[in-house]
Amino acid sequence: MTQASQTASGWWVKEDSFSPNDYRKQESLMALSNGYLSLRGSFEEESIKLGHAGTYLNGLYEFHPLQYGEKYTGYPEQSQVMINLPDPKSVNLSINGHTFSLDEGKILEFERYLDIKTASLARHIVWESPSGDQVNIESIRFVSATYKHLACLQYKVTALNFSGAITLTSAIALDRQNLTREQDPRVGVNFEDASWRISETHQHHQLLQVHGSTTLSKLKFRCTLANELGGLKTINTAFEQTAQALCLVGKGQIQAGETLTLTKYMWYDRYEMENPVAQVESIQALGFEALKAEHEAWWAKSWEQMDISIDGAEPMQQAIRFNMFHLTQAVGKDGYTNISAKGMTGEGYEGHYFWDTEIYMIPFFVYTNPHIAKQLLLFRYNTLDKARERALELGHKQGALYPWRTINGYECSAYYPAGTAQYHINADIAYAIRLYYLVTGDKLFMESYGFEMLLELSKLWMDLGVFDPEKAGAFCIQEVTGPDEYTCLVNNNMYTNAMVKSQMAFTLQCFDLGLQLSPSTQALAENFDRALAQRIIERMFLPYSERLKIHAQDDSFLSRPVWDIANTPRNKFPLLMHYHPLTLYRHQVCKQADVVLAELLLSDQFSLEQKKRDFDYYAKITTHDSSLSTCIYGILACELGDMEQSYQYYIKTARTDLDDFHHNAKDGIHAANMAGSWMGIVYGFAGLRWQQDTPVFNPALPPAWTGYRFTVQIHDMSLQVSVQADQVEYALLTGSHLTLKHKDQAFTLTQGQAKVMQ
Amino acid sequence: MTQASQTASGWWVKEDSFSPNDYRKQESLMALSNGYLSLRGSFEEESIKLGHAGTYLNGLYEFHPLQYGEKYTGYPEQSQVMINLPDPKSVNLSINGHTFSLDEGKILEFERYLDIKTASLARHIVWESPSGDQVNIESIRFVSATYKHLACLQYKVTALNFSGAITLTSAIALDRQNLTREQDPRVGVNFEDASWRISETHQHHQLLQVHGSTTLSKLKFRCTLANELGGLKTINTAFEQTAQALCLVGKGQIQAGETLTLTKYMWYDRYEMENPVAQVESIQALGFEALKAEHEAWWAKSWEQMDISIDGAEPMQQAIRFNMFHLTQAVGKDGYTNISAKGMTGEGYEGHYFWDTEIYMIPFFVYTNPHIAKQLLLFRYNTLDKARERALELGHKQGALYPWRTINGYECSAYYPAGTAQYHINADIAYAIRLYYLVTGDKLFMESYGFEMLLELSKLWMDLGVFDPEKAGAFCIQEVTGPDEYTCLVNNNMYTNAMVKSQMAFTLQCFDLGLQLSPSTQALAENFDRALAQRIIERMFLPYSERLKIHAQDDSFLSRPVWDIANTPRNKFPLLMHYHPLTLYRHQVCKQADVVLAELLLSDQFSLEQKKRDFDYYAKITTHDSSLSTCIYGILACELGDMEQSYQYYIKTARTDLDDFHHNAKDGIHAANMAGSWMGIVYGFAGLRWQQDTPVFNPALPPAWTGYRFTVQIHDMSLQVSVQADQVEYALLTGSHLTLKHKDQAFTLTQGQAKVMQ
Repeated sequence: MTQASQTASGWWVKEDSFSPNDYRKQESLMALSNGYLSLRGSFEEESIKLGHAGTYLNGLYEFHPLQYGEKYTGYPEQSQVMINLPDPKSVNLSINGHTFSLDEGKILEFERYLDIKTASLARHIVWESPSGDQVNIESIRFVSATYKHLACLQYKVTALNFSGAITLTSAIALDRQNLTREQDPRVGVNFEDASWRISETHQHHQLLQVHGSTTLSKLKFRCTLANELGGLKTINTAFEQTAQALCLVGKGQIQAGETLTLTKYMWYDRYEMENPVAQVESIQALGFEALKAEHEAWWAKSWEQMDISIDGAEPMQQAIRFNMFHLTQAVGKDGYTNISAKGMTGEGYEGHYFWDTEIYMIPFFVYTNPHIAKQLLLFRYNTLDKARERALELGHKQGALYPWRTINGYECSAYYPAGTAQYHINADIAYAIRLYYLVTGDKLFMESYGFEMLLELSKLWMDLGVFDPEKAGAFCIQEVTGPDEYTCLVNNNMYTNAMVKSQMAFTLQCFDLGLQLSPSTQALAENFDRALAQRIIERMFLPYSERLKIHAQDDSFLSRPVWDIANTPRNKFPLLMHYHPLTLYRHQVCKQADVVLAELLLSDQFSLEQKKRDFDYYAKITTHDSSLSTCIYGILACELGDMEQSYQYYIKTARTDLDDFHHNAKDGIHAANMAGSWMGIVYGFAGLRWQQDTPVFNPALPPAWTGYRFTVQIHDMSLQVSVQADQVEYALLTGSHLTLKHKDQAFTLTQGQAKVMQ
Repeated sequence: MTQASQTASGWWVKEDSFSPNDYRKQESLMALSNGYLSLRGSFEEESIKLGHAGTYLNGLYEFHPLQYGEKYTGYPEQSQVMINLPDPKSVNLSINGHTFSLDEGKILEFERYLDIKTASLARHIVWESPSGDQVNIESIRFVSATYKHLACLQYKVTALNFSGAITLTSAIALDRQNLTREQDPRVGVNFEDASWRISETHQHHQLLQVHGSTTLSKLKFRCTLANELGGLKTINTAFEQTAQALCLVGKGQIQAGETLTLTKYMWYDRYEMENPVAQVESIQALGFEALKAEHEAWWAKSWEQMDISIDGAEPMQQAIRFNMFHLTQAVGKDGYTNISAKGMTGEGYEGHYFWDTEIYMIPFFVYTNPHIAKQLLLFRYNTLDKARERALELGHKQGALYPWRTINGYECSAYYPAGTAQYHINADIAYAIRLYYLVTGDKLFMESYGFEMLLELSKLWMDLGVFDPEKAGAFCIQEVTGPDEYTCLVNNNMYTNAMVKSQMAFTLQCFDLGLQLSPSTQALAENFDRALAQRIIERMFLPYSERLKIHAQDDSFLSRPVWDIANTPRNKFPLLMHYHPLTLYRHQVCKQADVVLAELLLSDQFSLEQKKRDFDYYAKITTHDSSLSTCIYGILACELGDMEQSYQYYIKTARTDLDDFHHNAKDGIHAANMAGSWMGIVYGFAGLRWQQDTPVFNPALPPAWTGYRFTVQIHDMSLQVSVQADQVEYALLTGSHLTLKHKDQAFTLTQGQAKVMQ
């Protein structure tokens, strides 16, 4: 513990005392994951009944029937819900007949420590039992970054002032279930029946195994737990199985000063392999320390690619690393899973994937770990057929329509005005494809996947939109919902229309890239009506008020009365929890950035003056009830030269979860917002944009900081940017040569070269 | 039977043979009611397991929890569902050990006969048991129009070719429940638990009694059944009680030629009185025939006030009388109940009351039975406080908002875009108040109820609407749904805006009527912003396309692609059962009359040329998937001089249920459409409109008819209008003098006077 505490600042989240009220929040913040397996940051001890211990596998879901007062054609029949699985980290400790818990005895020392740099969670406790026996308990765990099925835990008990009987139980806890839905449409569901069942249990030497499957979705899982008990002269072990747990019980006599160590090798798989017992045993043979070293090496490499250091603002330094850590650990890395809105740290939003991935998180991955960005896009490619099905179901004659929320690729939004109607998901995916190609130059991806998706995504808009005779033949997109969910089912949402225009233009550009296509994609391309796409680009309608000289969020948005945010009581936010949708929809009030987001993503299409007018107008009527909002406003404020306002937004963004601004970190962290905090530095303060094929920086330094430095990956090269008050240094760490711009000045860096700009 | 069959044409609905496939439909068509108690037209015999025997009390509902995939503030927690109660008409017959059923033996003769004139249902059967014993079974029943708690049934069994044992059981069947929901959002719900429970049962002489209450809504009901068995030398009776029924079992020996008669006096109450046993016994003492005579006298009087006779078109004659019969029997007559969309003939729409009452049915009652029209308006007055509550819940600072669907006055629409968002319900109620006052001149009603409602209804619009700066300050109403539910959540629905304008004007007029107001209404009136109301009238926005020279159904309706109705397969109608709402909403396709309805109701505000252009446009894109549509189109077609088209619409309207055009008469008749068939004659063919305070007729004769005659009540006077090919006769049957117009010619009739116009 002491050693870890001495590491550099900004690399940890620490608890110095135990606070039951914060426990569920800390479970989320201190969750560990590798994008496949996730363990919430709950205590190991089964005897401590607090919070919500969660064990999740990315992509493992149960069906949950969706209920509707009135159900119509095309409504999803069921939701997919990320489920809480048997918990392999379970431990129980008993000293001279007293079970360690928070109800009995005394906590003499307490510390918990999330080590962001090494992605591990440690706890230190000194406990005195009701009889006065004192033990030191150290536990540390990690979810392996190198073996995706593996998590490891070490639990050490030292007798301080006594000798006596000790019982240490290692278990796979079976009495886990999902959270019951609270009075919040954004959280959890309750399964009327169990969401999973155990089909087999096994025990072998000191190894326990559970086979199970989900009840309705019939997805299989298997948990294998190898145990090592050591440190005492003799330990007697026995197996026990109850409805609650499968246990290995170790009993012995401990002498004062002696330490009993339990090491747990926890393996979760989904039957991708033969029974993994031998594999787990050989992993175990490598030992806890060696596995941990491998894990740490992976993280060291990752930090090299992505770290951001901030000088002079410790809370911001901690926040940005904490956020990047969560994103990097949570993301699915196999092309078949994605990244949950809550990053598998809690059950909020049922573990679903949203547009958060494409518009918020893919930018982070594209610039820090483009291989992962590609896997996220492949997830969409792998569900393209389902999106084609969905388009037909929604009455379209062609194209693909991606689901608003999903795990397996099928739609599971239960309230279509703020769900399925958010057709912009299509444009968001197209945008992410474009960004990925722009930053990586990965032509092979475009040939095999990207172009095919673009064609289908674009065909959908051709079917949906109309050249509106009432608007002089402008291309209009009706009856959709934009990012701002406080106004639903609108005509010509500005964000959607602008994004579709950009998507169409990129789709047409791809015809000129000389892509080598498969025959089926070739056929798709030949049937694609390029003239129509061109006409759509030329005639795309962007709602604009001549009266106010601003973009309208949609055709009728500016006709509505402005919501009186200032006189709305604080306890009425987020508004969606306190007002009927109709009440919200008939006012000018935004949950989150909409017009302003379009003007960030399509930065070169709007003048600075226009952006400023739009920003000033919408900033006043935006509640930021969505965590996807402040980051965007902060970046725009910076672009508009208002560093003070920008930095206020940035603080709210960066520490959203650490300071629990939304009062719901207990249900999981806000992954998109975390990515937004990364964008806040790279797009915001450093001002990264693209002019055609050239990255352009326009760096500024928040007054509270003395400097900051970050690394981005562009076209397989590593560029480090160091911003200080009086200068900016650009260094090409890897790669042959890169042309970029500092403000208006273009220059080329070769490998190892650095350039300082004033 | 024979006697009834000889009555005049158009007075009956008959079945000559038994058709199991039509059985559930016939249960609806042959349902009998008095607006308080309703019995579906099921056979009496418990042994015949077919269809859905329904027993309903108007206003007696159970709560049913509403489920939402995502639930927001202001969504109704529960629906109110009209429930199926214990069935007092139950009879079982057994001959020499063989129970009469359709599974055994043979039906030698069969006839069923709904007598519209006397509101009674008779059945004639000759049945041969498996042993060859033949019985003649005659049953006849009515639900008393003069004693609202009472229904009577007589069941006569004659041994034709045998002598032997006979058992005749009279029961209150207890095993009734509501229909299970089918794959149709318009039909039924299934209660997970029983919707009612029996608390007590009693038996006394030959009388049975059941006390019960609904499970969640805690509403009490009581069913008292007095029985008379006679005609045989000896009959032994015994009581039996099972979970299924409370029975009086009569056993005896019947000789060939003898007739055993069971008379049932069925009394339902909701504890409005002391235990009614004595009352039922004194009613019973009056005897079946006397009660029936009283009942028939009531109906004779009603027919006198409302009958329409049609010469030369028997199916139309039958249809209009059938429709008026259903409306008159189904309507709640006590100011605390209303009229279900299905008229208590089935469980479609859960027994709810809609705007159907105000816009379709109140016109019928205003002109035929104004006292009933007043009771319907009092229902709204009696739920005004609930509407005030609802307005606050929907975020309004003032006014009242009536529920889209309800039984007890609280909203129970579960899909707000085609429910709560139909704010036009407010304007519909205001319209009905105006119509009632116009036709009856009932100033007392306005003083005590009407004006107070109008003020609250108008204040709501003041809160909801805005003077839109984007539309040069026009008064706009946003985010509402008009009558056409195939386009929801729109801005400036033409029907709504036009109706609100008219409502505001009438509200202001009322200030000049010299009404004697209560202090509280006086205070309301003084606080009413008349200047604002005047400004709303002047600046009301009615969407209009200069390109097409037609009214737009709403701001963006005409921007959408037109739905290809002609190439939509027939089995895809009604569209709402086969397409996602988004698919419908983004097309120009109407479920029902919207603009066209406004132009009927506010006839004097639109030129004939304008009506014609609007009619021609909307007729092409209307599916009439709602049964509230063809009647309106038919009336407008007639006004526009297209009698051929008008008559085609009329046929579809008039015989909707008799010919089961919507394939769902099994779930209940279409009450509003029935009223539409009355409007089709009086507003349509006879062209009744008002010019200020004067009724104006503009009669036409459908070519298929040789003449028609109807009676309407205006200002407490009875006016008979007889239309023939070459002349129209107006006769003032009762009342002192009435000024009216035939086309452009004004004239005054005095009592008993008739005037013939060429």
